[in-house]
Amino acid sequence: MNIKVAVNGYGVIGKRVADAVRVMPDMELVGVADVATDWRVRTAVGLGLDVFAATPGAGTAMRAAGMPVAGTLADLLSQVDVVVDTTPKKVAALNLEAYRAAGVKAVFQGGESHATTGHSFVAQANYATALGRDATRVVSCNTTSIVRILGALQDSELLARARGVLIRRATDPGESHQGGIMNTLVPESSIPSHQGPDARTVRPDLDVVTIAAKAAHTQTHTHFWTLQLTRPASREEVLETLRAAPRIAFIRMADGLTASNTTVELMRDLGRPRGDMWEVAVWEDVLTVEGDEAYLTYQVNNESIVIPETIDAIRALAGTVTDGPTSIATTDEVLGMRRDFLPDALRAVPA
Amino acid sequence: MNIKVAVNGYGVIGKRVADAVRVMPDMELVGVADVATDWRVRTAVGLGLDVFAATPGAGTAMRAAGMPVAGTLADLLSQVDVVVDTTPKKVAALNLEAYRAAGVKAVFQGGESHATTGHSFVAQANYATALGRDATRVVSCNTTSIVRILGALQDSELLARARGVLIRRATDPGESHQGGIMNTLVPESSIPSHQGPDARTVRPDLDVVTIAAKAAHTQTHTHFWTLQLTRPASREEVLETLRAAPRIAFIRMADGLTASNTTVELMRDLGRPRGDMWEVAVWEDVLTVEGDEAYLTYQVNNESIVIPETIDAIRALAGTVTDGPTSIATTDEVLGMRRDFLPDALRAVPA
Amino acid sequence: MNIKVAVNGYGVIGKRVADAVRVMPDMELVGVADVATDWRVRTAVGLGLDVFAATPGAGTAMRAAGMPVAGTLADLLSQVDVVVDTTPKKVAALNLEAYRAAGVKAVFQGGESHATTGHSFVAQANYATALGRDATRVVSCNTTSIVRILGALQDSELLARARGVLIRRATDPGESHQGGIMNTLVPESSIPSHQGPDARTVRPDLDVVTIAAKAAHTQTHTHFWTLQLTRPASREEVLETLRAAPRIAFIRMADGLTASNTTVELMRDLGRPRGDMWEVAVWEDVLTVEGDEAYLTYQVNNESIVIPETIDAIRALAGTVTDGPTSIATTDEVLGMRRDFLPDALRAVPA
Amino acid sequence: MNIKVAVNGYGVIGKRVADAVRVMPDMELVGVADVATDWRVRTAVGLGLDVFAATPGAGTAMRAAGMPVAGTLADLLSQVDVVVDTTPKKVAALNLEAYRAAGVKAVFQGGESHATTGHSFVAQANYATALGRDATRVVSCNTTSIVRILGALQDSELLARARGVLIRRATDPGESHQGGIMNTLVPESSIPSHQGPDARTVRPDLDVVTIAAKAAHTQTHTHFWTLQLTRPASREEVLETLRAAPRIAFIRMADGLTASNTTVELMRDLGRPRGDMWEVAVWEDVLTVEGDEAYLTYQVNNESIVIPETIDAIRALAGTVTDGPTSIATTDEVLGMRRDFLPDALRAVPA
Repeated sequence: MNIKVAVNGYGVIGKRVADAVRVMPDMELVGVADVATDWRVRTAVGLGLDVFAATPGAGTAMRAAGMPVAGTLADLLSQVDVVVDTTPKKVAALNLEAYRAAGVKAVFQGGESHATTGHSFVAQANYATALGRDATRVVSCNTTSIVRILGALQDSELLARARGVLIRRATDPGESHQGGIMNTLVPESSIPSHQGPDARTVRPDLDVVTIAAKAAHTQTHTHFWTLQLTRPASREEVLETLRAAPRIAFIRMADGLTASNTTVELMRDLGRPRGDMWEVAVWEDVLTVEGDEAYLTYQVNNESIVIPETIDAIRALAGTVTDGPTSIATTDEVLGMRRDFLPDALRAVPA
Repeated sequence: MNIKVAVNGYGVIGKRVADAVRVMPDMELVGVADVATDWRVRTAVGLGLDVFAATPGAGTAMRAAGMPVAGTLADLLSQVDVVVDTTPKKVAALNLEAYRAAGVKAVFQGGESHATTGHSFVAQANYATALGRDATRVVSCNTTSIVRILGALQDSELLARARGVLIRRATDPGESHQGGIMNTLVPESSIPSHQGPDARTVRPDLDVVTIAAKAAHTQTHTHFWTLQLTRPASREEVLETLRAAPRIAFIRMADGLTASNTTVELMRDLGRPRGDMWEVAVWEDVLTVEGDEAYLTYQVNNESIVIPETIDAIRALAGTVTDGPTSIATTDEVLGMRRDFLPDALRAVPA
Repeated sequence: MNIKVAVNGYGVIGKRVADAVRVMPDMELVGVADVATDWRVRTAVGLGLDVFAATPGAGTAMRAAGMPVAGTLADLLSQVDVVVDTTPKKVAALNLEAYRAAGVKAVFQGGESHATTGHSFVAQANYATALGRDATRVVSCNTTSIVRILGALQDSELLARARGVLIRRATDPGESHQGGIMNTLVPESSIPSHQGPDARTVRPDLDVVTIAAKAAHTQTHTHFWTLQLTRPASREEVLETLRAAPRIAFIRMADGLTASNTTVELMRDLGRPRGDMWEVAVWEDVLTVEGDEAYLTYQVNNESIVIPETIDAIRALAGTVTDGPTSIATTDEVLGMRRDFLPDALRAVPA
Repeated sequence: MNIKVAVNGYGVIGKRVADAVRVMPDMELVGVADVATDWRVRTAVGLGLDVFAATPGAGTAMRAAGMPVAGTLADLLSQVDVVVDTTPKKVAALNLEAYRAAGVKAVFQGGESHATTGHSFVAQANYATALGRDATRVVSCNTTSIVRILGALQDSELLARARGVLIRRATDPGESHQGGIMNTLVPESSIPSHQGPDARTVRPDLDVVTIAAKAAHTQTHTHFWTLQLTRPASREEVLETLRAAPRIAFIRMADGLTASNTTVELMRDLGRPRGDMWEVAVWEDVLTVEGDEAYLTYQVNNESIVIPETIDAIRALAGTVTDGPTSIATTDEVLGMRRDFLPDALRAVPA
């Protein structure tokens, strides 16, 4: 029997979760809830989704705007096993009580604190500990990438210490008319930035410090890491470790993929929905290892990287798949995730 | 029997034409030709396309890079009825001779001059005169939009004179790491800019002057028109005229679609390939009519607006469909073009 | 005896007014008032200005931050003849009462409505009617440029009708980390935009419609005008009219000044304070006249164009100079305003 | 007797060097040489500089454009003691022969290789070794800042190892209409980037690795450093070391200086020519020290930071001042360089 899923909040993450749930063979999207009446939510109506009013006031406004309203949030919750909460930061913690009262399991997003649910989730790191829980939090885009990458190196006992500079996109493309930065660079005012400590909610064994800044572009974060290894290693050894871990793919400067916009264009050309990239994209030929130090650069598509994690979190809470790798494999196959974006034969070309 | 089509040049336009040809029920994509070996062309290989070497040197380089090469441009031309030439400006005129020698009909793009083929094409304006010709030129993105919009108003005898300011995107997203402008506005150095005269290669009856500038963004052009009407008219009359013409769709500020990035996001949410928008997007609630003057604002997605025109041009040259509206209707239905991007019911909401 | 001046609000306009007042031979800057304690106001302290607390709360905060506070706003007002109010929009109307109570004349800025003072000011248009008034409003940057340019053409009986597209900078450079737009173009939602009607508060005889949008850059607005002339005219005739009017300067594409950033750089190279440009910069070689239509393109430096007007408005209210052209000439000479930014000899070079 | 100076190349650096030479009490600017005839060089004429033709062809073109030409480059060289070469990269190495033939000492810029002159210069590091040489190279903006900052920490035996991420501006403001990047981040394709090794041409004792990328803004580079100290230290100890070194100034997030554009605005407000900042601007309250690691963030104004170094290099080659600190003190006082940009009293406010 399929897992019945609700999405509360039809924004940047919510709309992508809704689409991903719809294509999973073991899930059913019952509906989405929101409070807006603008083109975003109307598009959901146009796509044939059942839209519920997240608040009583929203229902009134939606009906006044001529939108079909499938019911209240309570109506929606009464029909589902798991709700994915992608509402803004302050709202989610309040929602948790409603979800508990309705007996619905809940997946939150990285804007919430670890304390809200007491469990923070990255599929490859701790699927097992989320099994059967009432709630978990899929960590943010940056943190997810850190756990995937540094976690893999830590598991292979290569990583002693990681110091990273995270150059973030300033705002999302769909919001860039009302909240951007222009012709500037905006460093965070304190070090470490929150991502390093946040990664330790999932992997307390990481020795990681992050420094963050916003740059004047709208798509993908880029991370620059200086890694202290536990011992001298070869470049190929580091690469092999990353190749063996899930949800990491490789790009190469030598292929002309020399900047973040080219990777976004590649995703469009591959036919990805919305040009999404769920993988961490590691620049294979930028990776440098000198003795016991490695320098690693990768891109994180902040709009979409947490979508596969969220799908896995739904399964973990529902308890329908007890094995993390099995869930990951299903998610990745259905979404079409890749380890390499270009034909395999071409990988033989020297960097 | 299907029209056999080649695409020469797998860039911003070429890759979209290739995709559109593949979904048309009456066409077959035999292959694409290019000279590059980077990720762009490798992606075509990955998508299963037959890639031909546009020059002998390119063939050598492609093979050296480990790419499968399906043959030479001559090999490709020997198998097709129509070639769509989307090569850079200087190359296309030379190619025309090769196409003629091979007995292949050719569709060029707006970067070429009218004189190259002697015929400039916008489907709704002059499909009939392209029928059976050896070659035609689909006019550029801006010119296509001008002919669609002003042509419709001229046909209804509403338009006396059009004066437009065209604020262009600076470069395409996939090229924006190597050829952009930053924190500036760059006006063209002479008035009229080429688009107004270019529109007259298709519609010599238009009284149109264009002024152009590049702004610091990468997606969609926006046109601001002051229209001198032949007589006082109502806003609704102007709207109705545009609603009756093909390949024009409406958006509204009142729906929250208040800037060019929001329209791009809407296309992503609608599941359009690459977020493409083939329609001219007219801001319905910005349109203002005062006496015998109208002020009209719309967006032009420069990456994709000429794709449906190119498909129609293929049919016109091949001569398999003799009626323009029939070709347009087929193209539009298969691509999923729309007159309105949001559910119809919502149109009842007052602006 | 010098006019004693206060500046209330030490922001983008206020700091420039303060500097300009300080160099005028017939004025004395008594002090500036503000509510902030950040680097902006601290810089004023560092420059040796007397800083007053615009509100009681501000005074407390300033002293707590270790800043020397010269007194209250009332203290400041008690020492001056004229106050220039450059506070945010909502605040100014309330301040008017305080200024009246203190018997101080007041110059407001274009963010306020015409109704606030009942008089809107552009020096070359209506200096005389401001003489001896209690208050006036220097109109906004865009409106100032419109009155300068269109007013000159109207005065010479050349202008019948003006239709303009105003591509605005999105935000000021010093604020661009917290309020910008990114990779988009944002049209205003209604036509006409406010600038056309606003110009008519100074020049009711203008037939002008404006259409506005914000583009993704931070410095200078650019206006693109289609002008219906009263009769066929030569390009030289239009140019001569503009050359004869004050506060208009000419730039040329042929000199390499091809975009708004190059003009900003020219101002830096000329040693202008903050790279300011007080003149409307008309692109001489872009100007095109066809029969009875003219197409005119110019730049407006929004940070500084109203500074000379504000200086003149101070004199007009104070009544110390009764003749507009005399005040304008003094202001322009002291600031170093120019009709041409490059050496005269070079003007002979053909476009 | 004053040092007679020529500047060959009147671009971003050249025009600033010319201005700085003119205000130095012990120098005389004889003239500048260039090859262009556009507004840049015409501005030099307007400022009263003698402009020489850097090539015979340039002389012809300048005269044809109506520009006064003071003579040839040979004429200029015959009148000077030192030439500052700020020509583009390829040109400078060829020029060296001409300078030697003319018996003129030459200061090159960081675009040239160390091998061109065999000596690379940062005043506080190695003024003494440049004394009396025929030629030296002032290292690039980024390298200059690295030597100032890391050199100071190395001198105090605090620094063991430095790993930095350099987020560069994409292009200069005056060039941003013709060579920018848009909505993207462009990492350099190999690690280390050239700046780390380049710093070692001046300070071979530094253990430094740099990783660089270009971001989508036009003003100032920002460096993010992870510093391995030789021992645990306090934050105050690191700060004191930097405070004691020349040409480093401090800014604070707590003052509202939270992004690179705010620092640029501060320079404009301080009345700096062109808004220049010759100091490395260290964010005092972002600096974090944890045990034996320090995290340091600062800004580098690429247009102007090398100007004081170039002035000192002129003196060192001329041999008129034999003591580095004396030259530095003169340069800094005349330019108005600062250790703190806001009034001293305010420094007492806690972060």
